[in-house]
Amino acid sequence: MISVIILGAGNVATHLFEAFNNAENITVNQWYNRSLEPLQPFKNIVGITNDISQLKDADMYILAVSDDAISSLSSQLPFVNRLVVHTSGSVGIHELDKKNKRGIFYPLQTFSKDSDIDFSEVPICLEIEHKKDLSVLKDLATAINSKFYKVNSDQRSALHLAAVFVNNFTNQLYRIAHEITESESVNFNILKPLIKETANKINTLSPYLAQTGPAKRNDKKTIKKHLKALEKDIHKDIYELITKSIQQTHGKKL
Amino acid sequence: MISVIILGAGNVATHLFEAFNNAENITVNQWYNRSLEPLQPFKNIVGITNDISQLKDADMYILAVSDDAISSLSSQLPFVNRLVVHTSGSVGIHELDKKNKRGIFYPLQTFSKDSDIDFSEVPICLEIEHKKDLSVLKDLATAINSKFYKVNSDQRSALHLAAVFVNNFTNQLYRIAHEITESESVNFNILKPLIKETANKINTLSPYLAQTGPAKRNDKKTIKKHLKALEKDIHKDIYELITKSIQQTHGKKL
Repeated sequence: MISVIILGAGNVATHLFEAFNNAENITVNQWYNRSLEPLQPFKNIVGITNDISQLKDADMYILAVSDDAISSLSSQLPFVNRLVVHTSGSVGIHELDKKNKRGIFYPLQTFSKDSDIDFSEVPICLEIEHKKDLSVLKDLATAINSKFYKVNSDQRSALHLAAVFVNNFTNQLYRIAHEITESESVNFNILKPLIKETANKINTLSPYLAQTGPAKRNDKKTIKKHLKALEKDIHKDIYELITKSIQQTHGKKL
Repeated sequence: MISVIILGAGNVATHLFEAFNNAENITVNQWYNRSLEPLQPFKNIVGITNDISQLKDADMYILAVSDDAISSLSSQLPFVNRLVVHTSGSVGIHELDKKNKRGIFYPLQTFSKDSDIDFSEVPICLEIEHKKDLSVLKDLATAINSKFYKVNSDQRSALHLAAVFVNNFTNQLYRIAHEITESESVNFNILKPLIKETANKINTLSPYLAQTGPAKRNDKKTIKKHLKALEKDIHKDIYELITKSIQQTHGKKL
């Protein structure tokens, strides 16, 4: 049995609580947040507190708080030599106070407040200061059915950066497509099967091999027509820049 | 029973042939290509020809050829007043020779040569010159289990342009993510669940509401760190431009 205490009450904290609470081999000993309000709905299933001096014992303390709060919260912890991990993709392990044993438990997935998360679809990136702390973090990931990957700091930073491209930036391309279809009163839903298949395709082909379209085949006529049709300057700029990027990747020139 | 003749032997032509051939209510009367070679594997199940003067009768002729070949191929057809459609997203209906009744049967999906296509996941955009030709095109789409959408020329152009953003451009973002992970010897597979979930999320949320991340919350520290970490200038440019686009969409300034 692994005992944990969660600190924080955002999306990641809440989804982790649900997953830990449903796991057979994990006990959540306590849930801390500086405001008790978001924890109230859970007070009958877990001990809640807003008083950091009242933190109980546990195998590990999970700081699922905003990036900016990690360092100061870790300094305020009223104990030493225990395992303290954060869940951020971009904050260094050394921003945790060195009075405790440090680690990172970074779930590489997009979390929405309202939708359930299937943790078997959430890869966990693990980083540790002391080698002997790795096994309990592996066990924690396994207990919620997640795959885990041991990474170093540079690798975690690369994953966090790459995640911005495949999640935030991709979602913005969906948004631009939504604007383009709305400007002609076309149903955006018509594009959803293509969006799904584009994501599925890389399960069998690398993105390099999966590429098609006017940029790759240097179809100047279509590219010109598209640039003319785009109404917003920033959409034209994005079209030109990603077209250039595709042509650099595939060895063609505009 | 709908009888069709396919002209062309690329990905779209081949996948349409397979779908039509498997459909109960469709007969493929003939398959034409200017070279017989790619049609040879099918010669025992359908009549094949490379002689355009030998085209048989059919309810419709489907020109599934490259954009540049549509106009001249339609002019070479040795008959008049029959229904002739092309399958392109970007070629105008009037590029088909006016001696025949014109239409468009545009499957909005990405096709790979080797993988099977489930046509229930392929929306078909229909455009017609004469209203009375619509029903046979609807029946054709329905016979292969596809959803169909009647669109006008401007709407089809908008869909084709939007498709470049959600397919080619999104795939290039996957490619950039692949380069970023490879530069630190991290397994690109770690990102695949996030790619899948990003595509799934828009089934329940608009791309506007689905947006998260450093650009949206104007997290300057992370943005700066990411820009510094990117090795290629064009990746920095794409990062800056899409960040700007997200901030314009969500009303924040860099």
